[in-house]
Amino acid sequence: MTSYTLTFRPSGQSCEVPTGTLIADAARLAGIDIARPCGGQGRCGRCAVVVESGQVRRRSTLRLSPADVEAGYALACQTVIEGDAVILVPEQEKIERRLVTDKAARKVALPFAYDPARHQNVRAFTVALNPPSLADATDDVSRLEHALADQGLPGICLPLPLQRELSARLRAAEWQVSAVVETDNWRQPQGPARLIDLLPGNNGALLPALYGVAIDIGTTTVSAFLVDLRSGEMLDSAAEYNGQISRGEDVISRIVYASKGDGLRELADQVQATINGLIERLVKRNHVDARQIYKATVAGNPTMIHLFLELPPASIRLTPYVPTVNHPLPQTAAEVGLNINPQAAVDCLPGVASYVGADITAGVLASGLAHATDLTLFIDIGTNGEMALGTQDWLVTCACSAGPAFEGAGVVCGMRATQGAIEDVWVNAQTCEPTYRVIGGGKPKGLCGSALISLLAELFITGVVDKGGRFKMDLGTPRLRQGDHGAEYVVAWAAETEAGRDIVLTTVDIDNLMRAKAAIYAGFGVLAQSVGVSLADVSRMLIGGSFGKFINVERAIQIGLLPDMPWDNFQFLGNTAVLGAYMALLSREARDQIKAIAEKMTYLELSADNQFYDAFTSALFLPHTDLGGFPSVAALMAER
Amino acid sequence: MTSYTLTFRPSGQSCEVPTGTLIADAARLAGIDIARPCGGQGRCGRCAVVVESGQVRRRSTLRLSPADVEAGYALACQTVIEGDAVILVPEQEKIERRLVTDKAARKVALPFAYDPARHQNVRAFTVALNPPSLADATDDVSRLEHALADQGLPGICLPLPLQRELSARLRAAEWQVSAVVETDNWRQPQGPARLIDLLPGNNGALLPALYGVAIDIGTTTVSAFLVDLRSGEMLDSAAEYNGQISRGEDVISRIVYASKGDGLRELADQVQATINGLIERLVKRNHVDARQIYKATVAGNPTMIHLFLELPPASIRLTPYVPTVNHPLPQTAAEVGLNINPQAAVDCLPGVASYVGADITAGVLASGLAHATDLTLFIDIGTNGEMALGTQDWLVTCACSAGPAFEGAGVVCGMRATQGAIEDVWVNAQTCEPTYRVIGGGKPKGLCGSALISLLAELFITGVVDKGGRFKMDLGTPRLRQGDHGAEYVVAWAAETEAGRDIVLTTVDIDNLMRAKAAIYAGFGVLAQSVGVSLADVSRMLIGGSFGKFINVERAIQIGLLPDMPWDNFQFLGNTAVLGAYMALLSREARDQIKAIAEKMTYLELSADNQFYDAFTSALFLPHTDLGGFPSVAALMAER
Repeated sequence: MTSYTLTFRPSGQSCEVPTGTLIADAARLAGIDIARPCGGQGRCGRCAVVVESGQVRRRSTLRLSPADVEAGYALACQTVIEGDAVILVPEQEKIERRLVTDKAARKVALPFAYDPARHQNVRAFTVALNPPSLADATDDVSRLEHALADQGLPGICLPLPLQRELSARLRAAEWQVSAVVETDNWRQPQGPARLIDLLPGNNGALLPALYGVAIDIGTTTVSAFLVDLRSGEMLDSAAEYNGQISRGEDVISRIVYASKGDGLRELADQVQATINGLIERLVKRNHVDARQIYKATVAGNPTMIHLFLELPPASIRLTPYVPTVNHPLPQTAAEVGLNINPQAAVDCLPGVASYVGADITAGVLASGLAHATDLTLFIDIGTNGEMALGTQDWLVTCACSAGPAFEGAGVVCGMRATQGAIEDVWVNAQTCEPTYRVIGGGKPKGLCGSALISLLAELFITGVVDKGGRFKMDLGTPRLRQGDHGAEYVVAWAAETEAGRDIVLTTVDIDNLMRAKAAIYAGFGVLAQSVGVSLADVSRMLIGGSFGKFINVERAIQIGLLPDMPWDNFQFLGNTAVLGAYMALLSREARDQIKAIAEKMTYLELSADNQFYDAFTSALFLPHTDLGGFPSVAALMAER
Repeated sequence: MTSYTLTFRPSGQSCEVPTGTLIADAARLAGIDIARPCGGQGRCGRCAVVVESGQVRRRSTLRLSPADVEAGYALACQTVIEGDAVILVPEQEKIERRLVTDKAARKVALPFAYDPARHQNVRAFTVALNPPSLADATDDVSRLEHALADQGLPGICLPLPLQRELSARLRAAEWQVSAVVETDNWRQPQGPARLIDLLPGNNGALLPALYGVAIDIGTTTVSAFLVDLRSGEMLDSAAEYNGQISRGEDVISRIVYASKGDGLRELADQVQATINGLIERLVKRNHVDARQIYKATVAGNPTMIHLFLELPPASIRLTPYVPTVNHPLPQTAAEVGLNINPQAAVDCLPGVASYVGADITAGVLASGLAHATDLTLFIDIGTNGEMALGTQDWLVTCACSAGPAFEGAGVVCGMRATQGAIEDVWVNAQTCEPTYRVIGGGKPKGLCGSALISLLAELFITGVVDKGGRFKMDLGTPRLRQGDHGAEYVVAWAAETEAGRDIVLTTVDIDNLMRAKAAIYAGFGVLAQSVGVSLADVSRMLIGGSFGKFINVERAIQIGLLPDMPWDNFQFLGNTAVLGAYMALLSREARDQIKAIAEKMTYLELSADNQFYDAFTSALFLPHTDLGGFPSVAALMAER
């Protein structure tokens, strides 16, 4: 049998192996450990390598797209050697990539070249004042006003708290100051400007540091970006569970809670505390003075925005589902309880209707849907499954309450995608034994959203659960048992776990996941139907949501969460809401676009929609009642 | 001796008396008691009656103007009968006129016909909204905005606290509401409007009650008018000592106090508490809901306005005497701590310089100086003696720190002009015994400003004090003695008084009064000199200040407080600051005029003025070093 030389890059290690040897086995010979979490079944795709040169034969390319194969990708466990070859082992995917989840999005590319003078409405102006004299005893306020008017800011608004410090600040700075100014806002595009802060001038030195925060208030997770308003750079990000979770897991239960006693004040306090906690973390980590954060943009669904502003959300859940406000008026940080500069401009981005909020309008901009030329579907997978279908010319939108299952909440062993979360799971079809990957690599603490999707798909594909989502208890594996919450599958035994308790997926968890995915899939269908297209007509599917980035398309299709279309058509964009808020934080034009999107979108109210209910019940199966919509899954099941 | 019949009106009582009988004696015969507090010396003028018909001979007309005599006035103690006559005894001057001082100014005539639609910027609009439906799920804010835009109020500003109540209020009112709106203010004369309150609509019934308060913050006394913004009527007024007095009696000591520790916060709290106390009194007495007070205008000297707004006043007393702001920006009641509707518009009227404030600009309008065609002098006699000289075309102004003596503060037995205050005193030239009149008629508690001026004049004219203001201790009267504060004159013995303690005027009190009057008179001189006129050129002298109304011109001239000019040239206007605030409360045009006045006035800073110092020392005598300026007083002294 002929032997060939296999060289592995970038390490340079090599080995001689006979023809037909699996790359995975050859690698082990060469001293390189390529992970095969699915046990070499070619199902997890984790062992993908790049064949840089030489001859190989791919037995299976499951989980690889045609483009991947074109680019040389091969599954090490499914590809055999048929000649000398050079194999690139991609830098082992950083399992620490979410070690500090907050750092995940450090590099965020803006879709425009940021020019503060053009885009930014919060800017610093150097002001050199003539000191007063007996001959010129103009009062301090007028002196500053005149100087700012000379710089094109006539009739500036000077908040009383700043007037109270004006006398001392002007004199301490010897009349050389930097004025931090909001030059305009969407409500008053022609001004007048508003003074946010007054700092000592530096005699012609650099203008002061100006920071902003972009915030997305999710029902389950709150995310924030710390941004340098001078460069436009996103310096850091942070995310945390919304402190309101203890008062209800979905928007409806929050609304109910807010309607009783001091519930509204309590929920407002909780979300403000959550945001302030994130801000504190961000400023500490980046050695920024919170008082130098002069601007905040806030995205979130309408209920979250109402609770943040302490607006009663009761009418949102009562027909005809009318919120107090879709497009909140500009506020200051002091008014809404944010611990940044008290005069900072706080701009809650506009929403469309009671269940389609600023997270979606901002997401439509950030995802690129707002500029799509082909039929595009956008979904923000969060506690609410909000989605939009359309092109740059038209948009329809709806929301279907998915619940927090995909964010790890409402699931017995669910958790957020932070260190210690199992983020992916494979199940051996023969043994029913699972393999999993933990964020940060330590002992597991629970299952995050991507793991839940993977696990449900694996359990279904391997036949551990049936198409109705029920466990097949007769498989003779100790992994399946009756637990406190009914039938359950043990993903990790107590001894392996951080807390010393079994990590399980229960039949109730599966019900929650099924309802969540069915609601979302039903939404897609109703949306398409409303404009007379079919899901097959959709050219691109854009997926937002903080955990969307880590979702596995194949698995999501297998459980019927996403429509069965070529993988290349999917784009995972992460938290598009906070991205849109970031764009709006930097650019007046982006802000205007979000406003235009909100005004353009046609909203479908599903609450009273029988079509939706029918579509939902049809989707309460794995992957769906109508297997015809899921040819790739049908093929896989047939194979099995 | 011929007898004549004397008939007294309005009572109709009559008597027969021989020729040459004093009207006062005849009256007593007829059973009518005409008060003669000065003991029939013809000096107090309190016994003035009107000779409606018949022949009389006036022995003296001291204290009566030629016009008075023309109109038939005669002093009952100085006029004898020479034929049948009908004598009108003017309704005994209501000694209760200041029984409740607050009620004194109940009838205030506006110098214009009030038309809310034209003059008023705080108005109510009836808004009939279409209830939302599934077909029209417009959010509440937009729904209200659109309806108000249809009424000519586009882009209205909706404060967050009102947004928080919007959902409930609209639904409770079944979408028929009255919107209380500030349509514009001096800072934004073209709008946008601002929503102040939202009330249930009355299905076409009357618009809701709209109230306003006009406030004058004096260093010593705070005054407030409660006004119906629909009719323009001043419903009630109230006045109280400024709660800050315990922290210093004049502006300088307040400024010093404000500069230490929490002094500023403390002083702001005190004046806010004083104003809130007045408002509470006004709303209780008039059965008004404080939340229906939607607007306040505030006059006061710059230090008072700074302390009210909690702006540090330190720079006011340091050269070059620059305040934080002369023309404060519009605020809301919540921002400045007033217990009225939290969104009420609070407008602090504009001042001119560090020591000439809104009390003067408002006073210049209310006094009529702003429209004077002849050379007119205006003075606001309060703790600061601020004054202005000019015509409708030009104005010069200055301030001289008079101290609070004329407001009854800084004087051992001084008090405000309320019930129990001695308001006028006469001294018998022979016995040195005093006669006095008490507000409300009961036992005296102390001496108010008008009594202090009268008393000093009487003591001077009767020779009890010399021109240097020193008591002549050798007059052999028990009224003069050495007290705890040096030499003193006993006005009322302990047994006569409310508190059972002697009411005295001390030599220190006299020094305070002398300094106060000297500062004011010096100010007049410097002001006239600055524009090259003499005090003799002044055609009219307008006197403001809450106690100015009750000042006795003759006495004021005798001590050298006011220039010696014909009594007809004086006009006593009461608290012109609160009057001006009242006008500004009602009329946008009046408000604009005050702004124009502030901009037009030329301010003379006296702090660094040697001329002023010289004039001041020359005026530290009774009536003045230069007796030539006081011919009427010189004549009286010669008589004596």
